[in-house]
Amino acid sequence: MYDVIIIGSGVAGVSAALTLQLYRKNILWLGSRALSEKIRKAEKIKNYPALTAVTGEAFVQSLQEQISAEGLLITPQTATGVYAMGKSFTVTTEKDAFEGKTVILATGVESSKSVAGEQEFLGRGVSYCATCDGFLYKDKTIAVVCTLKDKEHEVQYLASLAKKVYLVPLYKDVSLQQDNVESVKGMPVTIEGNKRVERLVFKDKTLEVDGVFFLKNAIAPSALVGGLQTQDGHVVIERDTSTNIAGLFAAGDCTGRPYQYAKAVGEGNVAAHAVIEYLNKNIKEE
Amino acid sequence: MYDVIIIGSGVAGVSAALTLQLYRKNILWLGSRALSEKIRKAEKIKNYPALTAVTGEAFVQSLQEQISAEGLLITPQTATGVYAMGKSFTVTTEKDAFEGKTVILATGVESSKSVAGEQEFLGRGVSYCATCDGFLYKDKTIAVVCTLKDKEHEVQYLASLAKKVYLVPLYKDVSLQQDNVESVKGMPVTIEGNKRVERLVFKDKTLEVDGVFFLKNAIAPSALVGGLQTQDGHVVIERDTSTNIAGLFAAGDCTGRPYQYAKAVGEGNVAAHAVIEYLNKNIKEE
Repeated sequence: MYDVIIIGSGVAGVSAALTLQLYRKNILWLGSRALSEKIRKAEKIKNYPALTAVTGEAFVQSLQEQISAEGLLITPQTATGVYAMGKSFTVTTEKDAFEGKTVILATGVESSKSVAGEQEFLGRGVSYCATCDGFLYKDKTIAVVCTLKDKEHEVQYLASLAKKVYLVPLYKDVSLQQDNVESVKGMPVTIEGNKRVERLVFKDKTLEVDGVFFLKNAIAPSALVGGLQTQDGHVVIERDTSTNIAGLFAAGDCTGRPYQYAKAVGEGNVAAHAVIEYLNKNIKEE
Repeated sequence: MYDVIIIGSGVAGVSAALTLQLYRKNILWLGSRALSEKIRKAEKIKNYPALTAVTGEAFVQSLQEQISAEGLLITPQTATGVYAMGKSFTVTTEKDAFEGKTVILATGVESSKSVAGEQEFLGRGVSYCATCDGFLYKDKTIAVVCTLKDKEHEVQYLASLAKKVYLVPLYKDVSLQQDNVESVKGMPVTIEGNKRVERLVFKDKTLEVDGVFFLKNAIAPSALVGGLQTQDGHVVIERDTSTNIAGLFAAGDCTGRPYQYAKAVGEGNVAAHAVIEYLNKNIKEE
């Protein structure tokens, strides 16, 4: 069992991991080894203390060097669910399940808007995980709203199961070509249905579907963790980054504005200290 | 009138200043151009994201270069009082008074313990400011508890006024030599008196005095700002760094643990954004 499972490899995750490593905690860190695509694209960062007018690319490179110098390793898997099991947590990914005494959510915010009905039909035709739920749509018709080109292999996997896939790409340069995949332009407006998803509605057209997959980097925290208190899509935290679920902490953009590196770094640090305190307390009580 | 007066030049102050400068706010920044002595002495910082195992010295140097590159200037004066005047604040220093629409307290924490009675007799014989209150002790007997060698010139100033000065140095290598200054070893335990200070008590001796000066870098926030809500010596803040006084924000070590660079940097950033929001709101209302 891990002392802590960190979900997310933006600067909040990095900050938490560095501090927990200092304290020699047993860490599982889920994220991307490329760290954050969003940071990498930043042209110039002018208000991160001690790095004068740094480019996003250089910032990410410094972070990667530091992570490796401190002996940290990122497990390149995407969390699909976080389950509070009493004294511990189970975190599932596309292919594994891990156990941790504590969890730090540092999942960032998804910049794409959510679609009306997305929350309502979650688990009733809406899914965020191709490998988890794909098998449910064998020989069925689905829509896949995909925000990132590097998720195309998941679309491909879904197309190997479903009869028909409407691909709604929110990126340029679609390279996927498969007989049963039809590219659809535009941004969906709403998901309709009765008990389950029946239609994905655009301004100018309506698709009859059995399910809608949203493939994106940052899953909404409320979709990831059942019962988590959120407000306007952000995790509600106390000053010590604790959430309404004991042992679960959150840091960075997922806790709200300002969406700033310095703020995320600060919360990651505070979350690490909160985890350490939580672990100390629980060890004493046992 | 300044948009904002930042008090303190540790990393929280730096972080706030960088962000407010980005937003082209009119800033007065009170602090030391050498920035923080505490950071400078740090041997190695291993959990500040993007700087691998940096020394305190190198960290401070990077901060100084950045401040100068971004066109920021520190006014090397020490705040001695913050007064809420309704829609603005007056901040006094040893020699000036400044007006600002908002204030960010980033004063750090004083590592030396406070002495029993210090709060109780503040303004009744206890002072933190030689140049403000020195004249009150002409031809009197005072004790000066001095935490830093570079405050010796203030002791000298006090000795030029008082009849007798007991110097209680909390540092090594006292170099001050003056006829009416007597060095006293040990740490005072308590301040006693009736209406005003009468005695400074040590474990092994008692000094009869008319006043006690504490010369330190970080003045307790509650001593700096009348009516400020504090707990265990820390400013009580909300997640947006707001205090119980409208327009007054606090960031960094003065708001509590963890005493960490990353945490301070995060709060400085959040405080800057809170100031910007506060200014926008008030301009609209006017």
